[in-house]
Amino acid sequence: METIGFIGTGHLGYPIAENLLKAGYTLRIYNRTREKALPLEQLGAILVGSPEETAVSGGIVLTLVADDHALQAVATEALVKALGQGGIHVSMSTVSPDISRELSAHHRERGVTFVAAPVFARPEAAAARVGNAVISGPAAAKEKIRAILEAGFAKNIFDLGEDAGSANVLKLMGNFMIAGALEMMAEAFALAEKNGVDPRAAYEMLTTTLFSGPVFRNYGAMILDRKFTGSPSFSAALGLKDMDLVLQTARRSHTPMPLANLVQNRLTTILAKDVHDADWTALASGALEDAGL
Amino acid sequence: METIGFIGTGHLGYPIAENLLKAGYTLRIYNRTREKALPLEQLGAILVGSPEETAVSGGIVLTLVADDHALQAVATEALVKALGQGGIHVSMSTVSPDISRELSAHHRERGVTFVAAPVFARPEAAAARVGNAVISGPAAAKEKIRAILEAGFAKNIFDLGEDAGSANVLKLMGNFMIAGALEMMAEAFALAEKNGVDPRAAYEMLTTTLFSGPVFRNYGAMILDRKFTGSPSFSAALGLKDMDLVLQTARRSHTPMPLANLVQNRLTTILAKDVHDADWTALASGALEDAGL
Repeated sequence: METIGFIGTGHLGYPIAENLLKAGYTLRIYNRTREKALPLEQLGAILVGSPEETAVSGGIVLTLVADDHALQAVATEALVKALGQGGIHVSMSTVSPDISRELSAHHRERGVTFVAAPVFARPEAAAARVGNAVISGPAAAKEKIRAILEAGFAKNIFDLGEDAGSANVLKLMGNFMIAGALEMMAEAFALAEKNGVDPRAAYEMLTTTLFSGPVFRNYGAMILDRKFTGSPSFSAALGLKDMDLVLQTARRSHTPMPLANLVQNRLTTILAKDVHDADWTALASGALEDAGL
Repeated sequence: METIGFIGTGHLGYPIAENLLKAGYTLRIYNRTREKALPLEQLGAILVGSPEETAVSGGIVLTLVADDHALQAVATEALVKALGQGGIHVSMSTVSPDISRELSAHHRERGVTFVAAPVFARPEAAAARVGNAVISGPAAAKEKIRAILEAGFAKNIFDLGEDAGSANVLKLMGNFMIAGALEMMAEAFALAEKNGVDPRAAYEMLTTTLFSGPVFRNYGAMILDRKFTGSPSFSAALGLKDMDLVLQTARRSHTPMPLANLVQNRLTTILAKDVHDADWTALASGALEDAGL
């Protein structure tokens, strides 16, 4: 089977790389901290020492890194040159729409196609291949990577069209809405508790009727259990980075988003308090603590 | 079949009364504006001229009115006296937990049981009997009214225990969360539109995956279609009344709720602009208009 490049085996990248190896792909992997990728060698992965060494000429390289800065650090001239004519760079990171559009134009001039394919999944969901992918970029390249995304993490793939930045916009919308849901539930549960109503009974009613989607069901349970820390699969720092991206994108497009400001402040407070191992669900502790709970 | 009293045939009360009549109950109806209840006479309803005339001694009276003030105006000494020993007052209005607790204590001294049973349903859903009921109050009375709630509007009934105010707290939580969801979607859709992403494609992805509950699905479609006015089934004024109740309950229990403040302000703006026939979904027009959309 195909050899593909894979850059970034963090909390989310690791289980995806593992799935691809198990599906039979040969992976050439680069990770800034080499040790984290080491166990994947036992599944046949080839660890390399630089981004460009992951690439096969005319092949596919997936990147999944923390932010715009990290993406720029791996999407080097050398990588794009190594991918060469017909190559495809699949960017799975949650980054700004702007950097996707810039890289897309930059790659195109060098014969490489850029596809944005941010991952909608926490690591557990990616591992179980029940995540969601949103993709945007040129049609032929999107068609070519479909099987890889399915083997890696995606149960569903949503096509957002040709503009490389569109998939990133939707990913930011989604993370903003999850953050908003955390705030909303935290305020509602605080109101319940302060007024003699068992938040679990309220949760049960609300998440089996009006708010039956997985975000309310899953994150609601985490809030009730106050599971805000301990080996976070998505840290408060990363959550804040995403809200920064939301508000930066909002600012540039003249879109006032007061709820986004509120959740950004909640996450800033978590970092200000220097909570060890805080998951981004710790956002919900803000409304609870403000109410003395 | 049983004769029951019914007070309040507004947007929501009317279809519920209609369902009860069709189910075979004999209804003694009082509505402040008598004309609105007149068509129900053709289904056998008996229209009466005062709240107390709806009551049968030892029987059941349902009330469904706009707010605390209207509830106090119909839950008169004369009504409670007419209900008498063994009577049950089922309060289906969205009112403060405090008034439920006050009336509960007041009724109890006079041998009447008070049950809070606020309606989770827009009029269409109540008519189709796919709404949700939350009930709180003494167990025996709750058991007695179950069949009536099912015949009237409820697909599911959630029991919140003995404290009369608890069902009202949950109802306020639910309406607050719907309002929060409207704000959240409006901000997210505005971000999409201002950044070249079709909000419908984003809606489709988000409401078939992470946010698959009916609130996001149904209200999201209303926002996309900008269906904010025209024979509102739940007006902006009533929505604002509910957010006032949320914040009043929050204030009294020392529960800061910044998102509730935000949506209250959104609804205040709708009333300030004096939008004719505004549904409470017009709340979502705030974030859209702020973004120049």
